[in-house]
Amino acid sequence: MESEKTEFILENYLLRHIPITSAMGVKVEQASSQQIILTAPKMNNINHKKTVFGGSLHAVATLACWSLLHVNLIETFDTEYQIVIASSQISYDFPVSADFKAVCNMPEQVNWERFKTILKKKGKARLELSATIVQDLQLCVSYSFVALRVE
Amino acid sequence: MESEKTEFILENYLLRHIPITSAMGVKVEQASSQQIILTAPKMNNINHKKTVFGGSLHAVATLACWSLLHVNLIETFDTEYQIVIASSQISYDFPVSADFKAVCNMPEQVNWERFKTILKKKGKARLELSATIVQDLQLCVSYSFVALRVE
Repeated sequence: MESEKTEFILENYLLRHIPITSAMGVKVEQASSQQIILTAPKMNNINHKKTVFGGSLHAVATLACWSLLHVNLIETFDTEYQIVIASSQISYDFPVSADFKAVCNMPEQVNWERFKTILKKKGKARLELSATIVQDLQLCVSYSFVALRVE
Repeated sequence: MESEKTEFILENYLLRHIPITSAMGVKVEQASSQQIILTAPKMNNINHKKTVFGGSLHAVATLACWSLLHVNLIETFDTEYQIVIASSQISYDFPVSADFKAVCNMPEQVNWERFKTILKKKGKARLELSATIVQDLQLCVSYSFVALRVE
């Protein structure tokens, strides 16, 4: 997939199928097999402390990781796979006080290759992906999920 | 606080100060110092698999735990305290396919007493709270956060 087209398709997919992302103002800034960057405005996601609600930070980080896996599964296997998120954890290290970006990068190549190999052999496999939210060079949020690809 | 009044005040607080909760359709079914039950409809929080988006499950569970702490801090100290969520983890054990409830119960008395004692002595303390989302007697989501009360 060309990157610009991938961004358009992914954003459209998220907004259409997960309507709360529309209320959150989620946009796809970058979508490649190597990196996903999702953005969301502070105003849609503000909390009582005038910072960004932790639930929204978690949701956008989740979508960034899910999107990376989604894009890679389509690219590698040329079909849409069912992804199940088994668990996730998030650390809120610093409040987010402005519009924000959640960034998910491709994991180490060895982990991805192992995931693909097990997926081909057994029809299911699990992968850990992580995302971060950084503001003014300050790491604010560290997130990771364990996802299963199921048949 | 009387319970019915507490529910009204809490729901009003959440919807006014964290507007994404309004888009999620969050309502306060029960709010006492012993238990918080928040509800949300499937339709506002649906995903591409026609189940409830994991980000929404996490958000409503977070709000349930935050609300329990908020209600208890007001009741105990008769003032509104700043709560900071340091981290959280969630396990998605079974998909949620209908309107759902997140339930947070008061932790063991000994933990709460320790939290209060340290809070009075040092002006800050940390507490772990957990919430669950159950559907048709099936545990679907286990959630917990570590919150800090800060000055």
